[in-house]
Amino acid sequence: MTANTTVAVIGLGAMGFGMAQSLIRAGFNVVGCDVSAERVEGLRQQGGVAALTPARAAEGADVVVTVVVSGAQSEQVLFGPDGAVNGLAAGGVVISCATMDPDTARSLAARTEAAGRHYVDAPISGGAARAVRGELTILAAGPEEAFAKARPVMEAMSTTLHDLGREAGLGAAFKMINQLLAGVHIAVACEAIAFAGKQGLDLEKVYEVITGAAGNSWMFENRVPHILSGDYKPLSAVDIFVKDLGIIQDMARTARFPVPVSAAALQMFLATSGAGMGRDDDSSVARTYANLAGVTLP
Amino acid sequence: MTANTTVAVIGLGAMGFGMAQSLIRAGFNVVGCDVSAERVEGLRQQGGVAALTPARAAEGADVVVTVVVSGAQSEQVLFGPDGAVNGLAAGGVVISCATMDPDTARSLAARTEAAGRHYVDAPISGGAARAVRGELTILAAGPEEAFAKARPVMEAMSTTLHDLGREAGLGAAFKMINQLLAGVHIAVACEAIAFAGKQGLDLEKVYEVITGAAGNSWMFENRVPHILSGDYKPLSAVDIFVKDLGIIQDMARTARFPVPVSAAALQMFLATSGAGMGRDDDSSVARTYANLAGVTLP
Repeated sequence: MTANTTVAVIGLGAMGFGMAQSLIRAGFNVVGCDVSAERVEGLRQQGGVAALTPARAAEGADVVVTVVVSGAQSEQVLFGPDGAVNGLAAGGVVISCATMDPDTARSLAARTEAAGRHYVDAPISGGAARAVRGELTILAAGPEEAFAKARPVMEAMSTTLHDLGREAGLGAAFKMINQLLAGVHIAVACEAIAFAGKQGLDLEKVYEVITGAAGNSWMFENRVPHILSGDYKPLSAVDIFVKDLGIIQDMARTARFPVPVSAAALQMFLATSGAGMGRDDDSSVARTYANLAGVTLP
Repeated sequence: MTANTTVAVIGLGAMGFGMAQSLIRAGFNVVGCDVSAERVEGLRQQGGVAALTPARAAEGADVVVTVVVSGAQSEQVLFGPDGAVNGLAAGGVVISCATMDPDTARSLAARTEAAGRHYVDAPISGGAARAVRGELTILAAGPEEAFAKARPVMEAMSTTLHDLGREAGLGAAFKMINQLLAGVHIAVACEAIAFAGKQGLDLEKVYEVITGAAGNSWMFENRVPHILSGDYKPLSAVDIFVKDLGIIQDMARTARFPVPVSAAALQMFLATSGAGMGRDDDSSVARTYANLAGVTLP
């Protein structure tokens, strides 16, 4: 069946390119589109088909997967000039993977459904390496028919597919809770490791002790090695959490819910981005602490 | 050898009582002392010997293990009226397990050594259940001779014994880095789960998704079940992190090092303690968020 199914992947960045590769490997016909011509050519060399615009990519496709950076970009590639929804045949499915606030996800879903197409709210988690291997976690929600049509495509990209309910926005909401925790865990890992440096502790030993103790987190274990090797090339950029913790602040303000811990963490991502490190690895927050307090990191 | 070694355990709370049991099981002669007569009687029934004061417990002991709540209490049981150091024979070893700031640990070590006894700075991690099973993690530091004499006793109480160096204060410093992370992880777990409640999400599902995703932490995984079952009986109390994040603030202020994320977390522990929940489980911070924002938790 996959050989008869055409999937348009809109956005061939670190995540989207890997997801497109997983889909090709699973036997889907894959059409790709990106603002970077180099990325599109790269996909062609992997066996995909190049398209110049989201609308052209969606023509003849059964499923459109959007993997752009934000809700605003998702709206642009779906409903902007040359947007994918007009190109997609009636009854086709949009799988929306960008991280965004739940209200935006609900709005995009409503507009897609009003246009006679299906929408699955499907933010992803797992990083670029797992995207290539088809081992993502997908936090999916959408009406039954949409979900059923999207399922084979989502399964080809993931090892964990959470079905979070029948309403778009639920995937986005679960993803934002994850981002709240992940962002704070990165910031506090940086706060702790730089403070350990200030105390003169052996930082390799700190990593060994903490990863075996109750102070551990997935992010501490994953990000602190970047700091210990002094390698800040971006696996995930500071500005991703400027955006995602910003969405948390907006959601929390709307809901009249105080989030002092994530608000403090956001300030450290902002300071790091403002100092010119927005496109560096998010573990660069440790450099901000080090710069503020005269600590020398590796 | 253990049968000829007498260990005095000062402080028979949730941790100390379990540690004393582990030492009895390993074959040491154990003498116990606590402000609660009931606790001391409990130890006697487990095969220990009861003592009325730290000084009396230390008489004839080779090793004194202090397991009280703070640096101030440690000073009291070691050097106060009826303190253990005077009772302990020359050449005896103090194993100091309370969490305290590194400066206090260095000061207690210097005074103990000036009195002709040895001192090992040995904060513990792992909780009451692991204390009983002799499965703690110990973050130990001290001069070679002190460490060597203390080692068999520490090994009987732990599965992971970190040797962090030859200077007292290093164990305390590593422990404080762990507490910084642990305290923030508890506070943000509470912030996230209560915010998820405010968003109307299925909290059991949130736990399932997050524990399998990049937003996970040891504390999220361990503490959120208390919230989901609405059970706030204290496995570790709110006031422990009022104390430990307070020590972090003091250390950071002395070092001129900004710690905005742990400062925000401390405010939530303070609010929770101030509202009368200081002796409840530290996951009670979720109730503070819920109370502030009109969220109903299980």
